[in-house]
Amino acid sequence: MENNTTLLEKDFRELLKEQNAYREAIALTQWDMRTKIPKKGIEQRAEVVGFLSEKLHQLETSEKMKYFIDMLKDKTGDEVIAKTVEDCEETYERNKKIPHDEFKAYVMLQAKSEAVWQEAREKADFLMFQPYLEKLVDYNKKFANYWGYEDNIYDALLHEYEPGVTTKTLDDVFPKLRKSLTSLLEQINQSSTKPDPSVLTGHFPKQDQRAFTLDVLKQMGYDFASGRLDETIHPFAIGINQNDVRVTTRYDEEDFRMAVFGTIHEGGHALYEQNISGKLAGTPLAAGTSMGIHESQSLFWENFVGRSKAFWQTHYQLFKSYAPSHFDTVILDDFYRAVNEVKASFIRIEADELTYPLHIMIRYELEKALINGDIMVADLPHLWNEKMVDYLGIKPPTDREGVLQDIHWAGGDFGYFPSYALGYMYAAQFQHAMAKDLNLDSVIANGDFAQIRQWLTKNIHQYGKMKKPLEIINEVTNESLNPDYLVAYLTNKYTDIYNL
Amino acid sequence: MENNTTLLEKDFRELLKEQNAYREAIALTQWDMRTKIPKKGIEQRAEVVGFLSEKLHQLETSEKMKYFIDMLKDKTGDEVIAKTVEDCEETYERNKKIPHDEFKAYVMLQAKSEAVWQEAREKADFLMFQPYLEKLVDYNKKFANYWGYEDNIYDALLHEYEPGVTTKTLDDVFPKLRKSLTSLLEQINQSSTKPDPSVLTGHFPKQDQRAFTLDVLKQMGYDFASGRLDETIHPFAIGINQNDVRVTTRYDEEDFRMAVFGTIHEGGHALYEQNISGKLAGTPLAAGTSMGIHESQSLFWENFVGRSKAFWQTHYQLFKSYAPSHFDTVILDDFYRAVNEVKASFIRIEADELTYPLHIMIRYELEKALINGDIMVADLPHLWNEKMVDYLGIKPPTDREGVLQDIHWAGGDFGYFPSYALGYMYAAQFQHAMAKDLNLDSVIANGDFAQIRQWLTKNIHQYGKMKKPLEIINEVTNESLNPDYLVAYLTNKYTDIYNL
Repeated sequence: MENNTTLLEKDFRELLKEQNAYREAIALTQWDMRTKIPKKGIEQRAEVVGFLSEKLHQLETSEKMKYFIDMLKDKTGDEVIAKTVEDCEETYERNKKIPHDEFKAYVMLQAKSEAVWQEAREKADFLMFQPYLEKLVDYNKKFANYWGYEDNIYDALLHEYEPGVTTKTLDDVFPKLRKSLTSLLEQINQSSTKPDPSVLTGHFPKQDQRAFTLDVLKQMGYDFASGRLDETIHPFAIGINQNDVRVTTRYDEEDFRMAVFGTIHEGGHALYEQNISGKLAGTPLAAGTSMGIHESQSLFWENFVGRSKAFWQTHYQLFKSYAPSHFDTVILDDFYRAVNEVKASFIRIEADELTYPLHIMIRYELEKALINGDIMVADLPHLWNEKMVDYLGIKPPTDREGVLQDIHWAGGDFGYFPSYALGYMYAAQFQHAMAKDLNLDSVIANGDFAQIRQWLTKNIHQYGKMKKPLEIINEVTNESLNPDYLVAYLTNKYTDIYNL
Repeated sequence: MENNTTLLEKDFRELLKEQNAYREAIALTQWDMRTKIPKKGIEQRAEVVGFLSEKLHQLETSEKMKYFIDMLKDKTGDEVIAKTVEDCEETYERNKKIPHDEFKAYVMLQAKSEAVWQEAREKADFLMFQPYLEKLVDYNKKFANYWGYEDNIYDALLHEYEPGVTTKTLDDVFPKLRKSLTSLLEQINQSSTKPDPSVLTGHFPKQDQRAFTLDVLKQMGYDFASGRLDETIHPFAIGINQNDVRVTTRYDEEDFRMAVFGTIHEGGHALYEQNISGKLAGTPLAAGTSMGIHESQSLFWENFVGRSKAFWQTHYQLFKSYAPSHFDTVILDDFYRAVNEVKASFIRIEADELTYPLHIMIRYELEKALINGDIMVADLPHLWNEKMVDYLGIKPPTDREGVLQDIHWAGGDFGYFPSYALGYMYAAQFQHAMAKDLNLDSVIANGDFAQIRQWLTKNIHQYGKMKKPLEIINEVTNESLNPDYLVAYLTNKYTDIYNL
């Protein structure tokens, strides 16, 4: 019996290896398409990605896979295999529920929609994009019904990105968070203390920005023998394999913030993937457990470390050694306050720490209503602008700076946005837990990032998908999702900066 | 009937598309492994290449493929499909003749041998590599027997790289060529006129070398919207798809020749792949027709254009605008003669135009004898050195500069080397043919490379694998392989340079 199981496990691992080979080839192709590919090569490459994705999908839903699941479920003594079987079963069930024809049509619709969205955004022409978005919403509603849910149809979509978190969770947490944030925002707006962001701008050559961020990445413990840093338009991190986890960034020579904070952010994602236990190699568990937990890692490094006073206390000197001479006359305190300026803005990815979650809530409310059929796609531009005024007090001049700004919906990704805000709340909870083991201010001020990385690896990274997101939150923080830590962190930070 | 054939052709094209998707994914992976991959990611990536190659091999030898070959051979009215079926049949028959177990074992041996060779070369330790090379030779003999041949077992291997060319062809051509080259070499050695290569060296920053070669690549008509230039250790060009053909180069900051002539060389390969007719897209015909014809394109651009007097007459000024100031005092004539210095050297890829074919002949004679069982692997180091003395008058200090210098045998590539010399002879024949249509000196001196590129596209590039190498040679030059043009070209060139 045991021998049979061991043989089965060996064969199962072979199938996983095939899946992984496809996954790795797809990831490399995606990295290349977003960093290196010459313009005219894209069209044909897109077909290759489609083909490889289809092959992966076939394996994930194959009879062979079903056989392994049936034979190994609850029958293996190997913990990694057991969790892998669970994961494969979930993928199998989820994908099997969608008729193959609909899956193929949806994949083609996604590709087409992204191209149309790109043009629509450039032209600020929502009507052009509307029919595609309508179809995407319809498909997602259909799929959600195939997958099933208990309370709210939107839960079925949320599950894909943040298993365990439901509409009910979000509806409980977001209003509290919103209330605290808007109240803090009001106080900030009324404060007479204002950071001066103009001290930050001015020409800063790309290669010098790059040199500084390379130093910071190395200090964070990002392993360049298992990764590299390239340029792109929309920065991302990607695990091609466990020993090839790449980060990308974008340089604005007039404003270093994009590259510096963006690289630290993507570096946080990459550290997660680089430090997953080698025991999970070759299984689908060798990946971040959810979008929310992933985002907690990037936001932790970007905000809780990279935008902290302790960080700049030691790193401003290093920064100035790379920066142009106009920083010579900028004192540390003015610099620190400037990189933490709070100001309502149209674009989510340019938002400050305080207003960022408000951008997410707007998207959450709209997509939840869309999927529930409470609003129509045609209503989106108008509702978006209304909410922007309501939450942030500003109205986008066109849909380009409004409803058309993000790619997510064009790719059919409904249920994804909340993970950004969840990740942010998780990060604050992790910070609170970490502070019990480490004197964070002094660790950061000493640039002793190894201690932070080791803490994150021990508590989070190593497990990959062996643990579900809420399992990690509960085990590491001894409580469930709780927005209070984020509110406390922001209140504390901005009280100091804005002299509230 | 016609409808059935059309339907069949449509299905056949679907299968070709799948093959192409694998080919493209493999090519991208290879490019990445040779230019970008972080060190620790290589081991896992090698498995991905192995997996994808196996999948491609399965399709190429599938029952489905056999079905299409049988159903479409001599039955289609579509010329591209007809040639594609021929090509697929050849691949099918060739691969089917090798038992699957042996194929797999051989692929693994290749990978292992390349790694061992790398170390053996570093250590100049032939004995370490010998057992692997012995096995590789044995496999190649076995495969050659599976494939079959008429006169000489080595023909079966030659066919893979240069179909139509046989041992008989080479044994007819090489001695003539050798005689002319060595006689020319003797005259050169006796000449009192000597170029001074020391004028070429000295620090030349990488980014300036790069800027110059980018200018030259653009002038050649290399399309950067369908390609890019990266750094690597062993430069190559690769067609990932028809609109993504990349070149690579290597910079020596103390000697610009490696990057400048190397980039023009790889650019010549790339122009071939970029200018194959769009009608061949999606078929295996959208590739260079043979190694020899491919090499004729790269050598044509590198030597017949890039090392010509006409080229430097116009480009020396441009070159100097990028070059360091010590070139200011070097006059054009001294520069031109220096980049064309003839000097026997140990390393093939560093050889000058005149001695290069002699390096090839040494390898040809040795591998022919090995495959025919006339010599043993253990004899190689000794025989190599003997031939070096015999052909070039110099003896390598160690096997690193001798028999261990090239990767080809470590990869099991026997029969590949002759295509370098064939390509060189083809290039001279093409130049002779081109000179009937174009005033080459004045076209080059005017930097009017579009005319050359268009001529090559019209006569060679567009056809991809629609025509066999000898078909192209015969149609374009109105004769078969003929070494006289290469001899005439070299005699003419060196008579001038060395005042013979």
